[in-house]
Amino acid sequence: MPIDIAASFSFGLSEPTDVLLQFEAARIPEQRILSSECRLSTAEKLVRVPAQDGIGERVWLRAEGVYEVEYRARVSVGRMLPDLAGLDWLQPHALPGETVQYLFDSRYCPATRFHPFVTAEFADLEGGALIAAMRDWVAGNFSYEPGSSNSNTTALDSFVERRGICRDYTHVMVTLARAASIPARYVSVYAPGVEPPDFHAVAEVFLADHTIVGGGAWHLVDATGMADPEHMVKIGVGRDAADVSFMTVFGMAEFREKDVRVTLSP
Amino acid sequence: MPIDIAASFSFGLSEPTDVLLQFEAARIPEQRILSSECRLSTAEKLVRVPAQDGIGERVWLRAEGVYEVEYRARVSVGRMLPDLAGLDWLQPHALPGETVQYLFDSRYCPATRFHPFVTAEFADLEGGALIAAMRDWVAGNFSYEPGSSNSNTTALDSFVERRGICRDYTHVMVTLARAASIPARYVSVYAPGVEPPDFHAVAEVFLADHTIVGGGAWHLVDATGMADPEHMVKIGVGRDAADVSFMTVFGMAEFREKDVRVTLSP
Amino acid sequence: MPIDIAASFSFGLSEPTDVLLQFEAARIPEQRILSSECRLSTAEKLVRVPAQDGIGERVWLRAEGVYEVEYRARVSVGRMLPDLAGLDWLQPHALPGETVQYLFDSRYCPATRFHPFVTAEFADLEGGALIAAMRDWVAGNFSYEPGSSNSNTTALDSFVERRGICRDYTHVMVTLARAASIPARYVSVYAPGVEPPDFHAVAEVFLADHTIVGGGAWHLVDATGMADPEHMVKIGVGRDAADVSFMTVFGMAEFREKDVRVTLSP
Amino acid sequence: MPIDIAASFSFGLSEPTDVLLQFEAARIPEQRILSSECRLSTAEKLVRVPAQDGIGERVWLRAEGVYEVEYRARVSVGRMLPDLAGLDWLQPHALPGETVQYLFDSRYCPATRFHPFVTAEFADLEGGALIAAMRDWVAGNFSYEPGSSNSNTTALDSFVERRGICRDYTHVMVTLARAASIPARYVSVYAPGVEPPDFHAVAEVFLADHTIVGGGAWHLVDATGMADPEHMVKIGVGRDAADVSFMTVFGMAEFREKDVRVTLSP
Repeated sequence: MPIDIAASFSFGLSEPTDVLLQFEAARIPEQRILSSECRLSTAEKLVRVPAQDGIGERVWLRAEGVYEVEYRARVSVGRMLPDLAGLDWLQPHALPGETVQYLFDSRYCPATRFHPFVTAEFADLEGGALIAAMRDWVAGNFSYEPGSSNSNTTALDSFVERRGICRDYTHVMVTLARAASIPARYVSVYAPGVEPPDFHAVAEVFLADHTIVGGGAWHLVDATGMADPEHMVKIGVGRDAADVSFMTVFGMAEFREKDVRVTLSP
Repeated sequence: MPIDIAASFSFGLSEPTDVLLQFEAARIPEQRILSSECRLSTAEKLVRVPAQDGIGERVWLRAEGVYEVEYRARVSVGRMLPDLAGLDWLQPHALPGETVQYLFDSRYCPATRFHPFVTAEFADLEGGALIAAMRDWVAGNFSYEPGSSNSNTTALDSFVERRGICRDYTHVMVTLARAASIPARYVSVYAPGVEPPDFHAVAEVFLADHTIVGGGAWHLVDATGMADPEHMVKIGVGRDAADVSFMTVFGMAEFREKDVRVTLSP
Repeated sequence: MPIDIAASFSFGLSEPTDVLLQFEAARIPEQRILSSECRLSTAEKLVRVPAQDGIGERVWLRAEGVYEVEYRARVSVGRMLPDLAGLDWLQPHALPGETVQYLFDSRYCPATRFHPFVTAEFADLEGGALIAAMRDWVAGNFSYEPGSSNSNTTALDSFVERRGICRDYTHVMVTLARAASIPARYVSVYAPGVEPPDFHAVAEVFLADHTIVGGGAWHLVDATGMADPEHMVKIGVGRDAADVSFMTVFGMAEFREKDVRVTLSP
Repeated sequence: MPIDIAASFSFGLSEPTDVLLQFEAARIPEQRILSSECRLSTAEKLVRVPAQDGIGERVWLRAEGVYEVEYRARVSVGRMLPDLAGLDWLQPHALPGETVQYLFDSRYCPATRFHPFVTAEFADLEGGALIAAMRDWVAGNFSYEPGSSNSNTTALDSFVERRGICRDYTHVMVTLARAASIPARYVSVYAPGVEPPDFHAVAEVFLADHTIVGGGAWHLVDATGMADPEHMVKIGVGRDAADVSFMTVFGMAEFREKDVRVTLSP
């Protein structure tokens, strides 16, 4: 069942300014872009560069005045969705080199500090079963409160305050996973059912599927429970929210509006 | 004039534990490894993976008991060292895709928060002249105090306390550069003249040399003033210290000793 | 010239809840309450207790439903206002016992960490001249930006981000003063000319006036420059904003509205 | 059974410097000083001022060179020690005015942020039973690790890292109690059985003993479990560790040695 995406946003730039955007469904094997249309205002410069881990693209603009982005796409998702709890831990030395950075602390995910908590709270669990327990712990102990966090809020803040939005739930999941030596990254997605409708964020962990030879792979985890990995359309990945904002301004911008709609195509 | 490196360290592991090491001079065009010798204790597993940006290697171990590392190398450095103040700023949209991550906030470098300070303190400066002014500002306002920082200390802490070690000087430099939309990364190096002798850390910024076609390149900056870019031997790079520790233990280890000697070969 | 105060605010409590209020002009020698009128909704309990340092009163309520506060007062201010720059430093051992707590770090004022900055930036200055230089430094380096801070923002955050509202300017002033071993406290005031009109906050430092015998006294300092100490009506004092909120709810409340008007009586 | 205290420490001051000390058993009704002896080096100035809440004294020095403090005392403790779990909560509006400051956030105890955690983790508990549950929660989830914290470590840090020393255990207890609207303060004590022997810190909460008319009183709580309230000799109290250091230097000092011995007199 394809997923229909309609996203638009606009902003005003009072002088020529560089802006970085990342808002399109990534062209990767697990999701097929059936159709897509992207309308952008005229820019002095427009450059596309591959985004992190080669997943999706970043769009650099240099523009001035009112700038509008309108994006529509129909995407068919076909990823493998093994039962999380049945996945195996990979000892760090067995990890592919490119996943190693996802073991380290990042801007919003100071994982090292959570080692004692993780060891005590989730003793005797490992791999996918551990990740599932972490997801359930976050889901059970946090409340989803729009407006309760800001761009300085780290997983440490959220862990103490026990609340946040998808960004914060994901930061806590990523942090707990890394504290257990499991590579974890932040994934920006389109997903139906998110309330209020918006860009969504989930975690992704690197675990092994023993039914597959050399089976290490990334697996999606949504601690908010709002979205189903079967219907998530990936936009980009990063160490945490610092890496995958849909819009980063290198100067001043006046944000004007944003509208994101994601539906299961009938 | 080649540089002679002799580094050794050891640690004790009470049970089989994964350890990540990164301590060898990187094999990259700007430095030639004339000779090298690496003695490691026997490990149950030993895997080498490419390190960040393909600069140097990370060594994964799985070992138990007392583990010793002994490394010797002679390296000839031949990098271009244009005058920093003469380098040009590259507008963000003109940056190669792989440098974009070095504009973002990272664990120890919350650059976004420094935008007002950088704008006010260094108004009217740009590119290499701006970086040189930042370096001089840090050098002039900070005091080098071993023991004044720890593994939680961020550039924000150091900026307020005005003190630290090479790690902290570098975090502040990286943070200020990124706050001015200049890609900056953390570089772990061997360098003669560091006092006390140890692994050293410096910043690297991405700027353009207009005397060269397509001249964007990484340029070393040492705000401590202790080492000379002409004689720095790069070990590895990362967004900040979280990425390039010489030793990261995924479990418990008892650190035993460390000895680092770097000299200009006569 | 008397000052006219008209303040009103209201909030809703869905169940019986304790609320602490502090919003009335303090009855202290330096300001005379010419007239005042305070209308409060009916409460299950209403208790008045002396506020910090005996300056003003705190009102404890236990109430339910919509609660309204309406306060009007005419106040004549008659405090001594010596030239700040002419005041002398009191060596700590010469301070009255009750001022000692105002040398220590508090929730929003981690003064100890600012010792190196203060020593370097304001070398060779002392007492009132030092405080005046700190006030000018804050005024010159910060921008007043409503919405740029929140209830977690400390002086350390504001110092880095170089912006805030009166609360934040005051926290930075208090922090810098304490870092120079000068007792400093946070004062909540009514003041004409504050834009937008609201409760205002300023710092108060303990310095000696050598023209007076035993002349240690508290002196007002407003780094925002918005208000004149001659016309400030004190509500209460504390170590920082944690101590002198106009309203603290011990449970849940829905804040409804607030209106504060302060004018020089014609 | 009286308690014998022998404490000594010394420090070097390279120029005339103000130092604040607080190290003597407080003369308060619940503990009788049977004998005491205090030897101090000669100081240019020596002033005693009452300490916070009138409990104990602070000693101001202005001195230079090597300074030695030697203190011996025999103290008989006779405080009431009702069963903690049987004590009642006082609604905030019923609290004496002087306890109100102990409901607020302080330097190391950002209690407001812990409200959701406390509400969820300790639902349905109140008063002394709640405090006992908090104490047991801390005791059960934290490990006592000398060297794991420093002078910047807050209750938020300790809560995440689940470890610390008596200072940190006390900060977490104080924070959790305040988050439940129970006044809590930090108490510096001498206590036998502390390992390693040193100044000790515990929390004190304000609760009501319904067997006594107007029975609100402060009650000691030691989450480390190392000391017995029956044998604690109070030195001073404060909002947190920022207020009751045994030694605060207003300048530079070289700390030389410290020796604290507390024993039950045979």
